[in-house]
Amino acid sequence: MPQRKYNNIAIIGVGLIGGSIGLAVQELGLAKSVTGIGRREGSLLAATKVGAVTTTTTRIAEGVATADLIIVCTPVGHIVNLARQAAACCPAGTLITDAGSTKQKIVAQLDLDLSDTNVRFIGSHPLAGSHAAGPAAADAKLFQGRRVVLTPTGQTDPTAVDETQTFWRALGAGVSQMSPDDHDVALAVTSHLPHLVAASLAGATPREHLQLTAGGWADATRIAAGDVDLWLQVFQQNTPHTLKALSNFEKVLSSFRAALESADDASLRQLLEQGKQHRDALGS
Amino acid sequence: MPQRKYNNIAIIGVGLIGGSIGLAVQELGLAKSVTGIGRREGSLLAATKVGAVTTTTTRIAEGVATADLIIVCTPVGHIVNLARQAAACCPAGTLITDAGSTKQKIVAQLDLDLSDTNVRFIGSHPLAGSHAAGPAAADAKLFQGRRVVLTPTGQTDPTAVDETQTFWRALGAGVSQMSPDDHDVALAVTSHLPHLVAASLAGATPREHLQLTAGGWADATRIAAGDVDLWLQVFQQNTPHTLKALSNFEKVLSSFRAALESADDASLRQLLEQGKQHRDALGS
Repeated sequence: MPQRKYNNIAIIGVGLIGGSIGLAVQELGLAKSVTGIGRREGSLLAATKVGAVTTTTTRIAEGVATADLIIVCTPVGHIVNLARQAAACCPAGTLITDAGSTKQKIVAQLDLDLSDTNVRFIGSHPLAGSHAAGPAAADAKLFQGRRVVLTPTGQTDPTAVDETQTFWRALGAGVSQMSPDDHDVALAVTSHLPHLVAASLAGATPREHLQLTAGGWADATRIAAGDVDLWLQVFQQNTPHTLKALSNFEKVLSSFRAALESADDASLRQLLEQGKQHRDALGS
Repeated sequence: MPQRKYNNIAIIGVGLIGGSIGLAVQELGLAKSVTGIGRREGSLLAATKVGAVTTTTTRIAEGVATADLIIVCTPVGHIVNLARQAAACCPAGTLITDAGSTKQKIVAQLDLDLSDTNVRFIGSHPLAGSHAAGPAAADAKLFQGRRVVLTPTGQTDPTAVDETQTFWRALGAGVSQMSPDDHDVALAVTSHLPHLVAASLAGATPREHLQLTAGGWADATRIAAGDVDLWLQVFQQNTPHTLKALSNFEKVLSSFRAALESADDASLRQLLEQGKQHRDALGS
């Protein structure tokens, strides 16, 4: 499918992800205009300043009135409500997607809520987050070489799948398709559990020991600096899968504990080697 | 104390740390010659190639014969034995230190074993490790702005403390002093536990999910790529303190689990905030 030239792309939530989409869209000339929609004038001003959007508004109805593509880039807990509001005010046929790092609850609810409207919806998740936040950190190249997961369902318009895939590919990303639930199972392991672990590790480190940390601790805990509200909403949306991933992680920890307690060097070596092999498989 | 100009500095183990010391010493002109001592000709050749050492040998007796400073930079399990061999063959009055990331067992054993010799010994730990390894990764600036912990005991010659402190400061490091046991308690929390956790997180991630990881997983697991033998020896040398740190970490994980299971958002928020506060206190 050839890349469509949009009349107006509306981005709801102009933080790191929304701001980066806006910058990329303009750099690539994918739209005549890009509207940033947000709650706070400060963020909208910052998004304008870095050139991520061409116009801004705090009113959704106004912001989506001429949009042929709407991307909801807010924390996950707000996506359903905002997409619903956007769908009620945008032109017929408009494509709505999101950038949320959980998918099952969002997609199930929107499949239900938008079924009687004439907009097209598909869930997206660009795996391109960071501990950095806000439009000031936005980067037109944020999605280059990264992966975006689309989560079509039986209710998804096939043209929405193609069009969304073409869009993310234009931004430089590789695109995969999974069911919303499979996505949430995998992301619990690859993203939500690591955040929980990093926060626990940082939280379990007494402040007086911070001066005795080196690169290892800094790397292992970096994501713990992420926005608390944003992550709270992720855990709220993906609780059972995160608990399952936590259980699997706790089993490995228990094996480490048993190996240490019994000075079982063979097991200890095996556990270290398993971790190294999986890490090396990713590359640096 | 003014920086002493050494006649010959012998570095036993020319990996990342040993190689970096050699490069820094030569860049700063702290010694007339730097001898690299190792078991494998390949590493010694690589160290020579990057300019970390001026001469090399696989024989300790030969390598330390004229040394007035000897630094043992091998994995921790070999330090005691090698320092003992070096002490038996080096000139009287020579200062011996190490770069091991555990201290209690090493220092207790060497305080005992070297008490009848006329060398001076003090334990050092430069907090400057990396998942990278080998002399090819050596960097003369590795210690700049990093911390080195010295672990003097009642048996340590006071001139050894001053001289070692002056040496590490010349390499750009800040120097602290702690008891060997206090060091191992702190490093269990700030380094050995994070490694165990990173290895567990990487090991608990099924390979088929690796393509769905992003920067968070990559950061959180980076140290798991570290050398298995090296880390096995660290855990062998610091088992009880690592188990204690693991228990404290498991308590925080259990709180996360309880908060998730009971959808206790206030507790979840508090746990995320505690992690963020400790991480933010360090900076990026």
